[in-house]
Amino acid sequence: MPGAENEVTIPEDRLLDLAVRALERGGMRAQDATAAARVLVLADLFGLRTHGISRIPQYLDRVRVGGIDARAEVQVARVAPGLAMVDGRNGIGPLVGMRGLEAALEGARAAGIGAAFARGSNHFGPIMPYALLAAEQGFATIIASNATTTIAPWGGKDTRLGNNPFGIGVPNPGGDPVILDMALSVAARAKIREFAARGEPMPEGWATDAEGRPTTDAAAALKGFLLPVGGHKGYGLAIMVDLLAGLLSGAAYLTHVRAWDKDPGVAQDLGHVFIAIDASRLGSAEWLRERMADFAAIIHDTPPADPARPVMLPGEREMAALGRQRREGVRVAAKDLRKVEELAEASPSG
Amino acid sequence: MPGAENEVTIPEDRLLDLAVRALERGGMRAQDATAAARVLVLADLFGLRTHGISRIPQYLDRVRVGGIDARAEVQVARVAPGLAMVDGRNGIGPLVGMRGLEAALEGARAAGIGAAFARGSNHFGPIMPYALLAAEQGFATIIASNATTTIAPWGGKDTRLGNNPFGIGVPNPGGDPVILDMALSVAARAKIREFAARGEPMPEGWATDAEGRPTTDAAAALKGFLLPVGGHKGYGLAIMVDLLAGLLSGAAYLTHVRAWDKDPGVAQDLGHVFIAIDASRLGSAEWLRERMADFAAIIHDTPPADPARPVMLPGEREMAALGRQRREGVRVAAKDLRKVEELAEASPSG
Repeated sequence: MPGAENEVTIPEDRLLDLAVRALERGGMRAQDATAAARVLVLADLFGLRTHGISRIPQYLDRVRVGGIDARAEVQVARVAPGLAMVDGRNGIGPLVGMRGLEAALEGARAAGIGAAFARGSNHFGPIMPYALLAAEQGFATIIASNATTTIAPWGGKDTRLGNNPFGIGVPNPGGDPVILDMALSVAARAKIREFAARGEPMPEGWATDAEGRPTTDAAAALKGFLLPVGGHKGYGLAIMVDLLAGLLSGAAYLTHVRAWDKDPGVAQDLGHVFIAIDASRLGSAEWLRERMADFAAIIHDTPPADPARPVMLPGEREMAALGRQRREGVRVAAKDLRKVEELAEASPSG
Repeated sequence: MPGAENEVTIPEDRLLDLAVRALERGGMRAQDATAAARVLVLADLFGLRTHGISRIPQYLDRVRVGGIDARAEVQVARVAPGLAMVDGRNGIGPLVGMRGLEAALEGARAAGIGAAFARGSNHFGPIMPYALLAAEQGFATIIASNATTTIAPWGGKDTRLGNNPFGIGVPNPGGDPVILDMALSVAARAKIREFAARGEPMPEGWATDAEGRPTTDAAAALKGFLLPVGGHKGYGLAIMVDLLAGLLSGAAYLTHVRAWDKDPGVAQDLGHVFIAIDASRLGSAEWLRERMADFAAIIHDTPPADPARPVMLPGEREMAALGRQRREGVRVAAKDLRKVEELAEASPSG
């Protein structure tokens, strides 16, 4: 595996412990650090390393310059039996995310379906960990967040829209839940940076130049805009996510979202939405188990176009990684682990 | 306008009256016919003619061969304050859809957020009419349905997944709601049929041949599969829609959905999901009005790549058509109107 020599394997509980200590040393209360670390370690377990413990140094850099408040007391206001509004008070994103998820689950326990609209937040990690935690308790979820602007509205030439992540999860009492977690651009900006660094042309349809014209020149694309998946359809979905997660939550939206990389010391005021549905109200666990097994069998039995690549369900690769890494330990980049270890050993701030 | 000579303009109230009478003559109770006709006439008002009154002859053909029950008594079971399960009893789709929407709104009035999971249904028209009716009452919505299989799972070569429509709507007290209503294929099958009829190659990326290989040969594509928007991302979203709308609702899903065109006399057992959020619990009408106006202004002010094509919000074109056609009358195909007139004049069935 390329770069494998720069990777290390660490048991889940040790990684979690390190992450909790690093976040505590960065100023978080113990209970809050545990909630946030859980999301990030689950990201690494899924193999989503760009959204795992590698984010801790970045989060704590922003705490140091006053851009995030590590000691924020997240506020939850229940506005209806199934509905809560969460004010993250500019806390660490995965902490606000966990409080939002919990509020949505509480609503769903009371009303069958619940939602939490969160404002005053920051980058909350990937969606998959939240969807997994809900599915393990029998809840289907729809979860989304807005983000720093990197996409031009369809037909436009200015970045006014985030590459907003959107996810749906469905529980499965007989096995792995099915979880979709996607951003709405064709390709991630980080991939375009790799092509630019190698001086190679990138595939068509990934991005435009600064004038909004389609390009395969990666350097020009970095001055331009990411293209949404499916053209106007992905654009439409990115808009609707911002309306739900940003506008309706009372958070910033569109160009009101501050870029954390350009203004690390300023609050981003990101917004998230969490919707949870208590699947046990819709049918018995046995009923759901049988239907999920049948559904998966129909998909897995599809004749593959390439016999070497069987057809998979959304999130199936990540669920397999989770199972394997829980048994065998979590693979992380050595440099990421080293940084978190250093932060965990540092003298407490504040 | 090409084909304009085959179009006629008819006032909304006259079109609605004709549609109601045609559905009543087809066997529906007056109140049920009014609910279903409202959805279809709204589709025509939006300019979505393929999902408007042109569907009435098709629906009633299926009633005649026993594939749909025009007199079905739709059942609504409230399983939690915010949650209802709807059994369409194989009724006309837009009737089941309207009962589902009403049940979701009832849940949202009680709990702040509500959902209805509907089974035993048929083609329910476009999503936009339901989202509009909810938005007019101050509710945001997430609405989806499964459909006859026309898409191959990503990497597979057999149609096992529907081109499932998915929509999100957000109310706007100061003007038009923003509504996304999209299917999950790159292009509609009807468009591919047009290329095949003209013997012309179609654009890349629309479909595969029967072996799952990408093709621009429209005739080969008609024997193959539609491609989902954004490749694996659109595939993932289509799967999640079927899990929510089909599997969790207790309806048929994937290949269990019967094709209405191949088996017109057999119940399809389609499923829908309606989620409604009472936006008035999140903030005042004034707060929402200001934010929606600001959001729209940021998008509309985006410099366009083509100065002749300003940047638009999802559903903006359809909302403009609705306003114009409510004032000036509804444009429909003369042949579609003639068929509905004939059905409205026919002697009652049953």
